[in-house]
Amino acid sequence: MSAQAASDLARIRSERPLVHNITNYVVMNTTANALLAIGASAVMAQATEEVEEMVAIAQALVLNIGTLSEEWIAAMLTAGRKARQKGIPVVFDPVGAGTTSFRTRTSLHILAEIRPTILRGNASEVRALALGERGTRGVDSVHLSEETVPAAQELHKRYGCVVSISGATDVIVGDGVIRVQNGHPMMPRVTGMGCTATALTGAFAAVNPSATFAAAHAMAINGIAGEIAGAKANGPGSFQVCFLDALAGIGAPDLEKSLKMDMT
Amino acid sequence: MSAQAASDLARIRSERPLVHNITNYVVMNTTANALLAIGASAVMAQATEEVEEMVAIAQALVLNIGTLSEEWIAAMLTAGRKARQKGIPVVFDPVGAGTTSFRTRTSLHILAEIRPTILRGNASEVRALALGERGTRGVDSVHLSEETVPAAQELHKRYGCVVSISGATDVIVGDGVIRVQNGHPMMPRVTGMGCTATALTGAFAAVNPSATFAAAHAMAINGIAGEIAGAKANGPGSFQVCFLDALAGIGAPDLEKSLKMDMT
Amino acid sequence: MSAQAASDLARIRSERPLVHNITNYVVMNTTANALLAIGASAVMAQATEEVEEMVAIAQALVLNIGTLSEEWIAAMLTAGRKARQKGIPVVFDPVGAGTTSFRTRTSLHILAEIRPTILRGNASEVRALALGERGTRGVDSVHLSEETVPAAQELHKRYGCVVSISGATDVIVGDGVIRVQNGHPMMPRVTGMGCTATALTGAFAAVNPSATFAAAHAMAINGIAGEIAGAKANGPGSFQVCFLDALAGIGAPDLEKSLKMDMT
Repeated sequence: MSAQAASDLARIRSERPLVHNITNYVVMNTTANALLAIGASAVMAQATEEVEEMVAIAQALVLNIGTLSEEWIAAMLTAGRKARQKGIPVVFDPVGAGTTSFRTRTSLHILAEIRPTILRGNASEVRALALGERGTRGVDSVHLSEETVPAAQELHKRYGCVVSISGATDVIVGDGVIRVQNGHPMMPRVTGMGCTATALTGAFAAVNPSATFAAAHAMAINGIAGEIAGAKANGPGSFQVCFLDALAGIGAPDLEKSLKMDMT
Repeated sequence: MSAQAASDLARIRSERPLVHNITNYVVMNTTANALLAIGASAVMAQATEEVEEMVAIAQALVLNIGTLSEEWIAAMLTAGRKARQKGIPVVFDPVGAGTTSFRTRTSLHILAEIRPTILRGNASEVRALALGERGTRGVDSVHLSEETVPAAQELHKRYGCVVSISGATDVIVGDGVIRVQNGHPMMPRVTGMGCTATALTGAFAAVNPSATFAAAHAMAINGIAGEIAGAKANGPGSFQVCFLDALAGIGAPDLEKSLKMDMT
Repeated sequence: MSAQAASDLARIRSERPLVHNITNYVVMNTTANALLAIGASAVMAQATEEVEEMVAIAQALVLNIGTLSEEWIAAMLTAGRKARQKGIPVVFDPVGAGTTSFRTRTSLHILAEIRPTILRGNASEVRALALGERGTRGVDSVHLSEETVPAAQELHKRYGCVVSISGATDVIVGDGVIRVQNGHPMMPRVTGMGCTATALTGAFAAVNPSATFAAAHAMAINGIAGEIAGAKANGPGSFQVCFLDALAGIGAPDLEKSLKMDMT
């Protein structure tokens, strides 16, 4: 399995897919840097006047509602429609779904209208969208990925999307269920690490036609970079620095040595 | 006094209060990271459609006008009213008050309408709001905290808020006057360190019912983390990294050793 | 030549010019930090209600359309007009011009209406504005600076602005042509390094009445800081940290030793 993940990584570095992000203010800088570090290209653009043209030159579209507003949602829908029409993958992160009805409603609207290739969220967000549960910790999850598999399967059935749930164990529900055990306990102590996983998923989906494996490889490489960073970091500040260095330096030997991915 | 600050810190780490921030684009990432590093939870949300629901699950609200616009001000007012009604602390940072009439006017409106629990600014901002003085250095202060105590007392009397002034000496005017001498000369060389102090004040106010002591403990721990970072950093880049590491690692022994806090 | 660059640097550090930025969400934090690190002051403000007052206290204005919208463009035009009327330098970065017609059209409008002192972009952006070429890599350049000199000369003639093109070789077209060979291959792997060069150009233009030399010195010092950082960094994460440290620490001896600047 590590050879396939390494193959995706090599393709990202040689093809440098352009990932168009309509994302939140908090993580724009860090997710652009993660995409550049892994070897992809990144562009942020949210004006309705230009999102279709930007999608037209992109190899993947990432939508993230972390600091949503009506205006940005309209741009996401316009961009999403264009991406589906063009046939490039759309990765959607429903940040904070279940926390406010605005986020839940918007997420369900995007799912129904755009039918993203991959839904990338935490367990609480996935449960909110599948089961209508309400969150209580803002944008952090209060559930485990494992107990969320049925909810993910429900969303997969309802919207046709692969569902990629981050957590201590990452669970990807698509053509089968893949579990990824890579990662580091410091990751939830850095803001936007989930959004980074989402952005990286866009880069992997741009080069791997299997959305299930693209999602899994992105989570695995994100997690292994976290492990490399966590081994060097003195805290969440140096973790972020080491994490970007790790994304840029990670290679096939790291994957062969550290990949913890199982399919059922 | 260090035992009380350590007690606040321990409560933040065990209760992980959710701090809802409506803040500026420049510091969203860094203040969210500071809140996570100290042990709190953070959420950024500014859509009028959802701020009340977000306040409803939050333990503190932080308002910061660093890159204000009419739309965001409206969201701040809506969120602020809800927070006061719910009874959670509101911390307000009038970034750049005195620099433009829009900022001064907006700040006075928020003070009068919301009556924040804590006003957290630099000396020039506090003087602008109390005395109508005009600033000349953008968002940096051109005054000392010490000479601003009467202005802070005036605002405390007028709006009932604790006033927490950052500077070489931090001065907190509330139930008495507390002076905090912790900090490091590199702090003004990093953008948004004042906004970070404001965000941390939100976390402390969430766990300590004394707004005066919450504000003082936040400034002290912010300053001590700055001292720890300054001792290791090679410049403002590494300072930021070390500062987040220090916030995550700081503990009772650091406070006992380094706290410089006096009440009069 | 290094003495003149060192003289600009010394003036920035003693006068601390206030650079008013209306820039994109991705780089607000990093460009503010670069300005503070070099010794300047920085303010971000984009509300139409206040941009004129902010320009009134600033020593330079930087406009950057990286995440443009109609509302922000209106603010840029208002601020730009005020800056020209007041006589302070305006530096304009047409991020992504040639990638979407919205960006190209907006850039040409700003050039014609504001007539910026310095146009600061990459080769693809400059070619798009001079020759109508379309880009294909989002905000990254697909052309070399050297082959873009005629296009830059065309823009210089048409709008009267100095044109500062970043690339492996930076080329500044104004009163003559200056080439700067400083820089490091890791710089394109960090998001917003071009925007940082633009912001620094604002600080240099604030203290040096020759826009040509201000632009060249900014690119040189940006590049030398990149070389210093690149020698220490383990990847793009630590590069950013070392870069800010280098900007703060750089001095006349570094310039004397490393400056690679030629005028023809």
